[in-house]
Amino acid sequence: MKIGFIGLGRMGAAMAANLVKAGHEVSLFNRSPGKGRSLVGLGAREATEVAGVCGGDAVVTMLADDDAASAIALIPGGLIDSLPKGSIHLSMSTISIALSRRLTQAHARAGQRYLAAPVFGRPDAAAAAKLFIVTAGDPATIEDCQPLFRAMGQRTFPVGTDPSAANLVKLSGNFLTASAIEALGEAVALIGKAGIDRRAYIEILTASIFNVPAYKTYGALIARGEFEPAAFAAPLGYKDIRLALAAAEGLRVPMPLASLLHDRFLRLIAQGGEHLDWSAIGALAAEDAGARQQAPTSSLSAAG
Amino acid sequence: MKIGFIGLGRMGAAMAANLVKAGHEVSLFNRSPGKGRSLVGLGAREATEVAGVCGGDAVVTMLADDDAASAIALIPGGLIDSLPKGSIHLSMSTISIALSRRLTQAHARAGQRYLAAPVFGRPDAAAAAKLFIVTAGDPATIEDCQPLFRAMGQRTFPVGTDPSAANLVKLSGNFLTASAIEALGEAVALIGKAGIDRRAYIEILTASIFNVPAYKTYGALIARGEFEPAAFAAPLGYKDIRLALAAAEGLRVPMPLASLLHDRFLRLIAQGGEHLDWSAIGALAAEDAGARQQAPTSSLSAAG
Amino acid sequence: MKIGFIGLGRMGAAMAANLVKAGHEVSLFNRSPGKGRSLVGLGAREATEVAGVCGGDAVVTMLADDDAASAIALIPGGLIDSLPKGSIHLSMSTISIALSRRLTQAHARAGQRYLAAPVFGRPDAAAAAKLFIVTAGDPATIEDCQPLFRAMGQRTFPVGTDPSAANLVKLSGNFLTASAIEALGEAVALIGKAGIDRRAYIEILTASIFNVPAYKTYGALIARGEFEPAAFAAPLGYKDIRLALAAAEGLRVPMPLASLLHDRFLRLIAQGGEHLDWSAIGALAAEDAGARQQAPTSSLSAAG
Amino acid sequence: MKIGFIGLGRMGAAMAANLVKAGHEVSLFNRSPGKGRSLVGLGAREATEVAGVCGGDAVVTMLADDDAASAIALIPGGLIDSLPKGSIHLSMSTISIALSRRLTQAHARAGQRYLAAPVFGRPDAAAAAKLFIVTAGDPATIEDCQPLFRAMGQRTFPVGTDPSAANLVKLSGNFLTASAIEALGEAVALIGKAGIDRRAYIEILTASIFNVPAYKTYGALIARGEFEPAAFAAPLGYKDIRLALAAAEGLRVPMPLASLLHDRFLRLIAQGGEHLDWSAIGALAAEDAGARQQAPTSSLSAAG
Repeated sequence: MKIGFIGLGRMGAAMAANLVKAGHEVSLFNRSPGKGRSLVGLGAREATEVAGVCGGDAVVTMLADDDAASAIALIPGGLIDSLPKGSIHLSMSTISIALSRRLTQAHARAGQRYLAAPVFGRPDAAAAAKLFIVTAGDPATIEDCQPLFRAMGQRTFPVGTDPSAANLVKLSGNFLTASAIEALGEAVALIGKAGIDRRAYIEILTASIFNVPAYKTYGALIARGEFEPAAFAAPLGYKDIRLALAAAEGLRVPMPLASLLHDRFLRLIAQGGEHLDWSAIGALAAEDAGARQQAPTSSLSAAG
Repeated sequence: MKIGFIGLGRMGAAMAANLVKAGHEVSLFNRSPGKGRSLVGLGAREATEVAGVCGGDAVVTMLADDDAASAIALIPGGLIDSLPKGSIHLSMSTISIALSRRLTQAHARAGQRYLAAPVFGRPDAAAAAKLFIVTAGDPATIEDCQPLFRAMGQRTFPVGTDPSAANLVKLSGNFLTASAIEALGEAVALIGKAGIDRRAYIEILTASIFNVPAYKTYGALIARGEFEPAAFAAPLGYKDIRLALAAAEGLRVPMPLASLLHDRFLRLIAQGGEHLDWSAIGALAAEDAGARQQAPTSSLSAAG
Repeated sequence: MKIGFIGLGRMGAAMAANLVKAGHEVSLFNRSPGKGRSLVGLGAREATEVAGVCGGDAVVTMLADDDAASAIALIPGGLIDSLPKGSIHLSMSTISIALSRRLTQAHARAGQRYLAAPVFGRPDAAAAAKLFIVTAGDPATIEDCQPLFRAMGQRTFPVGTDPSAANLVKLSGNFLTASAIEALGEAVALIGKAGIDRRAYIEILTASIFNVPAYKTYGALIARGEFEPAAFAAPLGYKDIRLALAAAEGLRVPMPLASLLHDRFLRLIAQGGEHLDWSAIGALAAEDAGARQQAPTSSLSAAG
Repeated sequence: MKIGFIGLGRMGAAMAANLVKAGHEVSLFNRSPGKGRSLVGLGAREATEVAGVCGGDAVVTMLADDDAASAIALIPGGLIDSLPKGSIHLSMSTISIALSRRLTQAHARAGQRYLAAPVFGRPDAAAAAKLFIVTAGDPATIEDCQPLFRAMGQRTFPVGTDPSAANLVKLSGNFLTASAIEALGEAVALIGKAGIDRRAYIEILTASIFNVPAYKTYGALIARGEFEPAAFAAPLGYKDIRLALAAAEGLRVPMPLASLLHDRFLRLIAQGGEHLDWSAIGALAAEDAGARQQAPTSSLSAAG
């Protein structure tokens, strides 16, 4: 297929590379230029404006947040203005329910097709084409995008015809992961203060009842107290919990654990942890327990 | 080996059966009699008092809580009184740190050997000899018990020489599982109120990022709102969170998520959910959201 | 002074009446007409549009929320468009920090003067001219408004030159009051389930250590389980906690008790308590304790 | 009346002095000797053992916690052993519901009379005979003790015939006060980070809607960040919240705000704040907000 790709961060660059490798004709755009160099080496073409990637079957967007996605899609000269009728906007960013609904309406008015297709997986999974993709929208459009999904992910889950449903599933999934991080943080603080080896503890749990990447990856980071470099930075985790809570407010669903996570992220950032991996909230329980050497601030000082 | 086995509930009966099948010579005791009948059919012998199972290499205990374990071990005519010097008490129950320490001291004074070896796994895992066993105590004693561990579990993890460390790991593991239940409950309440199919949602998550039994089992129960019959009843979950919090108080580790779980279990029980599976705390978020048909009370009325 | 008054709800009508009684020349405006009738009887004049009350020394606004305040002030033909240069907008509504800042800038650009002056007190205190007024802005303007403050309140507290500071003090005060309601709700649930008389309990506490209106008023409502009619409805309480949390996010201040209150209000509204007094969150603890007859839903059914 | 007084801490010494001044014949006992010297100067007599103060109409106990109260009352040679039949034990300590029940039964078996009569008020209120006294037990016994209550307090509130009811009211009152401290802590962190003067803020609130000693005293301590010397130390506050939660568990009443307070106290103590006033939990919100100079640890270092 002939596709545009907008957003060449760590995730986007890896996904775009897999599209090129799968034989698609890919043109690239990134707001800060020069990010596409290695992809050009693989055969992609780099454009200097949004309109330059809008001439094909579909445009994939993989952007950091609502602001970035709005700026690409909704401003004059953006996606809505530039995409041909019938062409597809495949929005893979983690954005709010509200923005997903605005995009649904704007694309419909412009005679374009819109799918939400956020992903689960960290940059290494993106590089290995092992992402899990959750998608929602018009079934025929989903069908048309299957070659793209196959090139980027290991499995795709359709969740209905309302695109924002896919965004909500994604946000709820990040809430579940952040909950696991908080739980691991408290558990590690507990057994650590009892003198049990933290790393051995995580190995036991993740070799037995929690044998999945989220517990392995974040459990190990918490056990070691190493939150730099950040594969997914604290402000992004904070953003996703805020978006989940915003959706929960709209639907009137009290989520006390999400509120706890909100306060943890806000504290982490207020205390100077903006550059740390989001799993650094898992060190706050140890800090509360007076075990300061395990707290993110130690990591901060080490970095200073 | 020649062993005694005390405590023939759903877990204990399955574990004892696997010991018999592995060729060990097993004598049984249960406070309420008649529970060992099917095991006697397999070749076990049933005793009418604790002393009657204490003549061999080891006695395994698998009891419901601290009270039951104290009653078996510490009263006159109990384990401490009856076990020969050098014989092993293999305590596989989920008990408190404090009781595990008392047993450690009492057995030491009596010249007996004591291992804590609590397990992860529900009754079906016990029946399939697929338990994960966490053990702590004297390394030579652990070595001597390997044939028993192999008969009952799929893998055994030693965590040091202080038996109570194994109990703390077990309690912290149940805390992690209860945390996952709460998180699932909130997430399902959220996506359910948005009109997304609850069961499909759980299938997506557990086929992708949370592909482990805890999320599958409890996610499905929450999605269906079915909390009876209870494989692990709410009061047992409440007990374990209380024991984790008691350990956390002793070690001075604030655990806000554990406090939230404590309040959830207390509410479930206060509202009449004592007979439900502990995953019924995962229905409270939907109740808070005004989606009463998903709340445990509906299950209660249905049962009434 | 010659003043306009916009917003004739229960609070505003009582405040405007006190201005008239103090001898000020008052013209009135309310979006839904007919609210000013009794005030006209006292000597006030009623206008049919915002501009009609903007010809004097000052315009007082007492509106329900940010939306209402924005609609009055910022739309074409609103306050900013209609107020003469040098005239004062005395904004007494409980609005967000963000809106207060926007108004500060808009009035400054238009050469008008702006004071924030939110109040503490329920409608009975407004009627008795016993409000506590917190104000911030230009000191000379505060001085000019003293005759108005004296007519409406028992005491006025200046908190600096940035108007939004007064709004933050007001929001934080409502947070403190909501916190007292939650605490009273939990305490009453506890002693009530122990069989202690709830009303006698509140009388003891408010005759001794908590001898202030907030504890007396809300303690009595909780003890009696009577939350209708609402003097200050749940959605207004929810709004103020959300505004406090929005300010806290902006300033990066985690507030776990405010998060708990947020979830309590959201639950009360999700469960159908929109028409109840905000102190009905104080019945949720009893509901959690299984004492359903004390819960707001009983009041709901009684009302149905 | 002829009375014994046991427990000469800051509270007890002031209360005993008021009994002497009111003309009662007072004999004193304190476990660590020498505490009664100034009272002896007023005319009291000091005994060297519990039995030495048990010969009169009543014995007042004012002890730090359950352990101290048990040691005085329940051990051989203690109060139960020494008090004549018909004599009164007036227990004014803040103790658990469970211990109060044990004492009720033990005194009844011994033919003695028992009243619970815990107090509200800090040492300065005790010295000024301005305590509020909550009492429960046999009405005739309460009547007999009125001269003592009048000598020590400004007002006495009977709450029924079951002594433990008075203890529960006292514990719930301390929970309410700790809740106010937490709320003040979060509010002060919020307005402080916005640049509003903390002391002026507390003056505004306590001159208006929260014009009571608890808000004045603790608000001022939090605004100044001064938590030493402790008039009521953090471990005592922690103890009371734990006793309230223990009662709540027994009655099955989930109290999320009490759980939050529990975690705050545990954190304060874990981080080295054992010697600080209990209102130091009101500095944790500012610490979470990254405003470390306001945190108790700064006070700690200043003291170090």
